[in-house]
Amino acid sequence: MATEGLDMRTAVGWAARDAGGHLSPYTYDLRKTGPEDVLVKVLYCGICHTDIHQARNHLGMSKYPMVPGHEVVGEVEEVGAEVTKYRAGDVVGVGIIVGCCRQCHPCKSSNEQYCNKKIWSYNDVYTDGKPTHGGFSSAMVVDQKFVVKIPPGLAPEQAAPLLCAGVTVYSPLKRLGLTSSGLRGAILGLGGVGHMGVMIAKAMGHHVTVISSSDRKRGEAMDHLGADAYLVSSDAAAMAAAADTLDYIIDTVPVHHALEPYISLLRLDGKLLIMGVIGQPMSFVSPMLMLGRKSISGSFVGSVEETEETLAFCQAKGVTSQIEVVKMGYLNEALERLERNDVRYRFVVDVAGSNLDHTLSSEEAA
Amino acid sequence: MATEGLDMRTAVGWAARDAGGHLSPYTYDLRKTGPEDVLVKVLYCGICHTDIHQARNHLGMSKYPMVPGHEVVGEVEEVGAEVTKYRAGDVVGVGIIVGCCRQCHPCKSSNEQYCNKKIWSYNDVYTDGKPTHGGFSSAMVVDQKFVVKIPPGLAPEQAAPLLCAGVTVYSPLKRLGLTSSGLRGAILGLGGVGHMGVMIAKAMGHHVTVISSSDRKRGEAMDHLGADAYLVSSDAAAMAAAADTLDYIIDTVPVHHALEPYISLLRLDGKLLIMGVIGQPMSFVSPMLMLGRKSISGSFVGSVEETEETLAFCQAKGVTSQIEVVKMGYLNEALERLERNDVRYRFVVDVAGSNLDHTLSSEEAA
Repeated sequence: MATEGLDMRTAVGWAARDAGGHLSPYTYDLRKTGPEDVLVKVLYCGICHTDIHQARNHLGMSKYPMVPGHEVVGEVEEVGAEVTKYRAGDVVGVGIIVGCCRQCHPCKSSNEQYCNKKIWSYNDVYTDGKPTHGGFSSAMVVDQKFVVKIPPGLAPEQAAPLLCAGVTVYSPLKRLGLTSSGLRGAILGLGGVGHMGVMIAKAMGHHVTVISSSDRKRGEAMDHLGADAYLVSSDAAAMAAAADTLDYIIDTVPVHHALEPYISLLRLDGKLLIMGVIGQPMSFVSPMLMLGRKSISGSFVGSVEETEETLAFCQAKGVTSQIEVVKMGYLNEALERLERNDVRYRFVVDVAGSNLDHTLSSEEAA
Repeated sequence: MATEGLDMRTAVGWAARDAGGHLSPYTYDLRKTGPEDVLVKVLYCGICHTDIHQARNHLGMSKYPMVPGHEVVGEVEEVGAEVTKYRAGDVVGVGIIVGCCRQCHPCKSSNEQYCNKKIWSYNDVYTDGKPTHGGFSSAMVVDQKFVVKIPPGLAPEQAAPLLCAGVTVYSPLKRLGLTSSGLRGAILGLGGVGHMGVMIAKAMGHHVTVISSSDRKRGEAMDHLGADAYLVSSDAAAMAAAADTLDYIIDTVPVHHALEPYISLLRLDGKLLIMGVIGQPMSFVSPMLMLGRKSISGSFVGSVEETEETLAFCQAKGVTSQIEVVKMGYLNEALERLERNDVRYRFVVDVAGSNLDHTLSSEEAA
């Protein structure tokens, strides 16, 4: 009962105020740390492409002011009376979801990310009727169910991208039985999710091909990320030579593209895993799936359990994300650069090191 | 060594002579029964929609004269010296494939139906350079690897549709882990494959919905085939009420159609199994797969092993096909009716009871 009755606290985040999506300092109230809650002082927060979509209302569902950020690593400052798993000082993570109904089939099968009543970490309404706000902020109060422990040995800034980009590739590989060593996989598109795909697949012992529209990233894919092969999708001869060789392709391309050139690379039982939210219809002809027992699957991040597994796997295998650490003051520029795909491969904001109060006063003064 | 050196025999089949697809009696040589071969006197042969496509050159790959038929049940007349699994008098089945390379990944993993060098039961060229001919014929010589035993207790005419339509639904249900009782499945389209789908899924203990474009088949689906529910795809209210309820849909519709109304019926991890060879692109939007971890899969008949499993399963569960038995003289009319979908649900030709020689002489005299 030590934490009950604590006063509400204020947090200082960076919020978008309208669909322009420009982020600037914003002070708001945090709810009291309830019995099942954990108060997290944010240390680092990764920047995901979804943050751009939300801040700029690309999906038509944005409410402002909005503090984005859903790859959150922080330090526990305080826990509710019913919280036994965490205590002050623990380094923990928070991902894309902070609530679910706990009654439906997905919730009951530890697939809460598919709950129709899930509560997003930001741009949503919590059970108390107040807006949720994300990790570009000094602090968050989060139900312990949606908090994960960061294993010792994983640097907190390194862990941040694992909470969304990492589990997004780990979850479908595990669910679809694609974790055995010796499999041949490919990553289509080398951004935040794609680079985690290369490293996690390599750590599973797979032969990993990076497929890209140009030769530009060959060196970094092979030398820096450790890919085994590099395939330029416009090189018809190379594509033909690679036909019928892959067990899976993780397709991270976030815009409309033809699927059939990639389906033809799959061997018997090959799986095309679609990761990009694409509103325009994608197409295939049925014999391409039938003659090879191939499939096209969708997947959406991963569960809390799978997030913990991803962290443990990366810790055990020494998988690190390739990140560019920036301060909060650089947030808008980072979003611009991310939109141009000008980052190798994930921005992580050093929130705790950004002197939020100072930034706040200087911006407010301006 | 008893069978070596036997003379070549002639068979009397019904062949298409050109893309008109009209079948008429045709006498041709069978190869000698080689050491690994089985000489099969054909008793019954089912009529599959593929037979129409092949006879009429819909796929542009037909060679004439062509004796179709790939759901063949017959009696062993003679076996080669190396054949130990079969002997004269056994009732056996032959399906869609009579040869494969035995070297490739599919062959080595008992998935010979996906071998790129597979030899089709008809309209193909055998290893001796001669055309293959199918089951609308007095006899076939078939490598023992592609012969299955019909379990005692399964009527031979009943068994015929299991060799293609039956294994076509059994194989993907098994491969995708969809055999546990209690699952909720649907069959889209109630033809030869669809009706086997209803009966096999019911025998697995599933709750089975038949989805059709009209109310016309409700009675037969529910009363004769034992479906649990019937859903008319144009009934928006019924479709909405069924959203998010199904573990799988077996989609047997052989022409282009929208997939999204059906994807929306799938629950978490739901699978859409495409069975129809459709040349026109089919489409989906990626969030419909992602938000539910759904998949679209293809599958193509089944292996010899899976054919044996299908037969054993149907025998054990008392699954019978719903067939209309006709004589060879009715073959052209049966093909016409099948094209109009005017059969409940599979034609099976009583080949042995058709007095092929007599038919031959009367047609030749005409």
